[in-house]
Amino acid sequence: MSFKTVVRSFRTLSYVGSYKKIRDRPYKFYCAALIGTGFVAYSQMKRNRAEMKEIIQLKNYMAEPITPLAQLEKNQDDMKTQMELLIMRIQAEFCRALEKEEDEEAKFKVDRWTRNEGGGGITCVLQDGRVFEKAGVNISVVSGKLPPAAVQQMRSRGKKLESAELPFFACGVSAVIHPRNPMVPTIHFNYRYFEVRDKDGVQWWFGGGTDLTPYYLNEDDAVHFHLTLKHACDSHDPTYYPRFKKWCDDYFTIPHRGERRGVGGIFFDDIDSPSKEEAFEFVTSCAEAVVPSYIPLVQKHKDDAYGYHERQWQLLRRGRYVEFNLVYDRGTKFGLHTPEARYESILMSLPLNAKWEYMHEPKENSPEEKLMKVLKEPRDWLKLERATA
Amino acid sequence: MSFKTVVRSFRTLSYVGSYKKIRDRPYKFYCAALIGTGFVAYSQMKRNRAEMKEIIQLKNYMAEPITPLAQLEKNQDDMKTQMELLIMRIQAEFCRALEKEEDEEAKFKVDRWTRNEGGGGITCVLQDGRVFEKAGVNISVVSGKLPPAAVQQMRSRGKKLESAELPFFACGVSAVIHPRNPMVPTIHFNYRYFEVRDKDGVQWWFGGGTDLTPYYLNEDDAVHFHLTLKHACDSHDPTYYPRFKKWCDDYFTIPHRGERRGVGGIFFDDIDSPSKEEAFEFVTSCAEAVVPSYIPLVQKHKDDAYGYHERQWQLLRRGRYVEFNLVYDRGTKFGLHTPEARYESILMSLPLNAKWEYMHEPKENSPEEKLMKVLKEPRDWLKLERATA
Repeated sequence: MSFKTVVRSFRTLSYVGSYKKIRDRPYKFYCAALIGTGFVAYSQMKRNRAEMKEIIQLKNYMAEPITPLAQLEKNQDDMKTQMELLIMRIQAEFCRALEKEEDEEAKFKVDRWTRNEGGGGITCVLQDGRVFEKAGVNISVVSGKLPPAAVQQMRSRGKKLESAELPFFACGVSAVIHPRNPMVPTIHFNYRYFEVRDKDGVQWWFGGGTDLTPYYLNEDDAVHFHLTLKHACDSHDPTYYPRFKKWCDDYFTIPHRGERRGVGGIFFDDIDSPSKEEAFEFVTSCAEAVVPSYIPLVQKHKDDAYGYHERQWQLLRRGRYVEFNLVYDRGTKFGLHTPEARYESILMSLPLNAKWEYMHEPKENSPEEKLMKVLKEPRDWLKLERATA
Repeated sequence: MSFKTVVRSFRTLSYVGSYKKIRDRPYKFYCAALIGTGFVAYSQMKRNRAEMKEIIQLKNYMAEPITPLAQLEKNQDDMKTQMELLIMRIQAEFCRALEKEEDEEAKFKVDRWTRNEGGGGITCVLQDGRVFEKAGVNISVVSGKLPPAAVQQMRSRGKKLESAELPFFACGVSAVIHPRNPMVPTIHFNYRYFEVRDKDGVQWWFGGGTDLTPYYLNEDDAVHFHLTLKHACDSHDPTYYPRFKKWCDDYFTIPHRGERRGVGGIFFDDIDSPSKEEAFEFVTSCAEAVVPSYIPLVQKHKDDAYGYHERQWQLLRRGRYVEFNLVYDRGTKFGLHTPEARYESILMSLPLNAKWEYMHEPKENSPEEKLMKVLKEPRDWLKLERATA
């Protein structure tokens, strides 16, 4: 089975597994089928040179990889190469899946950019579509010297690193999708790999997460979303989902308002066990779960009826999204304070439109108030506590 | 002359001094007349008890002062009292001046709030008016214990303070006005007084500033605005305007975009000389200059023609305003990270609507590009360098 075939079969599977079907069939089967394909593609298949060339020349990528082809071929066993190929594939699959939900003429604008210090990225943005008001899917592959302040920040997080300017490599994929229809939630995900070298050698870790921000609460959607993420986690470690679900609720908090940004998902940082290959496989599973967790919700709601009132509420909640991203999000803050940062790629996460009303209060017993209750007190969507009690 | 009369004569003068008249008459006369009134009101007039009572019971204030009347009466010579009365008056005068430009039914909503730890504030917001899309004018008068982290921050700014939890008092007025018409600029101002007590006694200082954010550049407006601020500064110290103009350009910068928020104005912090009374008089002059610096611009442009294109540009620039306020503004950050902060008062500065487009570029030689040039390279509006060269 060539890699191309694997990619194709995986993609077909994602679309076949539409929302209703996922919920009707036993989820273990679905999960095994879905995740299994990723496994074959990335860990159990040792590629020959010709296959490797075929992979990196797949026309499906949004643009040419940032790392030169010759270098990717030469270092195909290196995690840096594996991760770059993963994020290229995830970016392309997600962008194509979103385009399928759009009008024919709405396509992603693709910007491939490079940094003077080393590396670059590919930023894909679809703006002002009929289905998506603003959709941004970005990958970056960067290397260089980490300033002492950044090293210090990592040390304060528990990393045992020399206190100096250190060479690093980082790559990741991140996306924020703001749909037009207030009944379709916003999704955000980010999966990343980091290497830093000091006198004792190279340290590496993975981080990431996927989370959902609805404007109107649909409990079935939230359950479907969390279930899909749980499946991606469970095949690797049954403790992952509950831990990373809580981490997500804690992270995506707007402290000054005492509310969460949305209904959560999973979030993790500093994953460096059990092994590099296994951690990579876990991240691969999570990244592959994005399409089946989200596209069915788009399909289900993109033509739902709504009016002025619902649109105004969506704009107000988008204002909260901006508040979280600009005031609290570590990635955004780190990005904006990095010299030479490509701010357009960092800020693609901001919605096309947002609104702030002084002292806005949802009406009692309104659908808006129903959402606020969940944002103020995160829910155990899969009723795991009851199940294990 | 009673205090009431003084206030009235000052107000009349502000309105008489309309835009055209200010620019036609010799500015020294205008300045002396304008500022002089403030002087009489606040420094040269020793008030008796009855007059004091009359002042604090002036029906013109937006709400009852935060500090109980009896306490204000008792401590009328205290700078805390003088400053609270000043910010109450400035708030009321500015709100009434804005209401005069609005439709009859558009009035400020007034929220008087208190803090458990001590003090409170009065937040006035006019939202969704015909002339003003969102106008917020806030005063706060707070006291309590300053956490060691805040003391540390002050020490790092050069304040000689004991490293401990210290009792403090702070009061100030701040406002952000976002008009509907893209031809009317946004104005922001803030004037504040701070006291902190350690084992060596009480330290005090003033801070503040006024700055203008146009969506379309009108050079006459920028000159009028800067000239009015310069007059307010010059009668106190001729070095103030050039120093505080530069400080303003430096402070209201969006580093990741390499641009200023607007065309500047004045900004200063830590003013503790030549004396408490003189510093207060300077701040009074600056605060009294807000109405004559801004209201004429509103009157001149509020009925200017504009269309969809200009509105979209205004919304994009409002997005930049949000970026500055949430990512860089010290006051906003400090406020949001303070436990028990009244976030609605802090965030009243955010526009009703804002927009973020990926990779927006103004067309060459467009009015939008003309503005961007000035935001990228601040101008010496009053040609002071040429004058002194």
